[in-house]
Amino acid sequence: MPKIVDHNLRKQRIAEATWRVILEQGMEGATVRNIAKEAGLSPGALRHDFSTQEELLRYAMELVKEKATVRIRDLFAQDLKPRDKVLRILLEIVPTSEETRAEMEVWMAFTAYFRHKQDNFDPHQDGIYMLVGKLIAYMEGNGLLRQGVDQAMEAERLYALIDGIALHALMAPDRLDKQQISRLLVYHMDSILNTAG
Amino acid sequence: MPKIVDHNLRKQRIAEATWRVILEQGMEGATVRNIAKEAGLSPGALRHDFSTQEELLRYAMELVKEKATVRIRDLFAQDLKPRDKVLRILLEIVPTSEETRAEMEVWMAFTAYFRHKQDNFDPHQDGIYMLVGKLIAYMEGNGLLRQGVDQAMEAERLYALIDGIALHALMAPDRLDKQQISRLLVYHMDSILNTAG
Repeated sequence: MPKIVDHNLRKQRIAEATWRVILEQGMEGATVRNIAKEAGLSPGALRHDFSTQEELLRYAMELVKEKATVRIRDLFAQDLKPRDKVLRILLEIVPTSEETRAEMEVWMAFTAYFRHKQDNFDPHQDGIYMLVGKLIAYMEGNGLLRQGVDQAMEAERLYALIDGIALHALMAPDRLDKQQISRLLVYHMDSILNTAG
Repeated sequence: MPKIVDHNLRKQRIAEATWRVILEQGMEGATVRNIAKEAGLSPGALRHDFSTQEELLRYAMELVKEKATVRIRDLFAQDLKPRDKVLRILLEIVPTSEETRAEMEVWMAFTAYFRHKQDNFDPHQDGIYMLVGKLIAYMEGNGLLRQGVDQAMEAERLYALIDGIALHALMAPDRLDKQQISRLLVYHMDSILNTAG
């Protein structure tokens, strides 16, 4: 058992080293050699866990998603007013802290990298499209959406809004800081929620 | 005079070759050698117009923006109902055709490239942020915005929406085709325009 734990911990340490290398040097710098150095391991030790660079990058990408997924699942389970719950979750998937900013930056680098490498690239692999659909349905299920609101359109609109905000927060963090993002999301929610929301 | 024209035409031809190379091979492939080959010129001839690779890439990037700017200026000058004019302009800055799709793809590659190269990178260099502010003010000036609508918030929201749509149209063109984008923009406009709009 301890061996398995060690093994997973080491893989995670390697993934985190990969993120740091990407943040500092971009995807071009994410070579096995650079990542091994950052993780304090030999390239050979690294190859013990990942037989190819692509396998390592794919694992490091999945781990970004997993971290966010855990945070969102925790928020769903919390005892919050539906409107507040949705807002908190939305704030979790846009860059509002150093941590989520780094995650977003790394995720975008991975996406750009794999988009041209894979024939079967899935544009919805980050899960955000499914998540916003779920959030709109959740608000409708709690009777919060205004009359006449089109659920499918609202999901598509919220999806674009969230990814646009994420992109802009990454490019222009001074203009779009956490407070401004929060204001914008509240403004948007107010426009689709009824007074009960 | 003819010499200047020839010179500009050749620079444009080189820029267009740069776009094609980026579309096919990504930014990694955009070397002076590859671009010269694509343009049917020798690397030496290419260096006659651009002394560095960065100067060439910067020129090719500016030309993408210039093409879009000309189309938008033409639309502004047209005799259209204000609401239709705004919609047509918005449809011009998201990928809805093979041409605008290629432009967007190339623009994003340039942005990702220069963002880490330049100390004074300007996140608003594509002009979209200024443009949406102008469009919101134009609608307000024509008395089209609903009462209670916050102009600054609407500009920020439209900006995020447009770039989110652009990103998604690039990643998932089958889901977000021209018709669906148009529906979404009409839906959004309807939500902020009064009945006069």
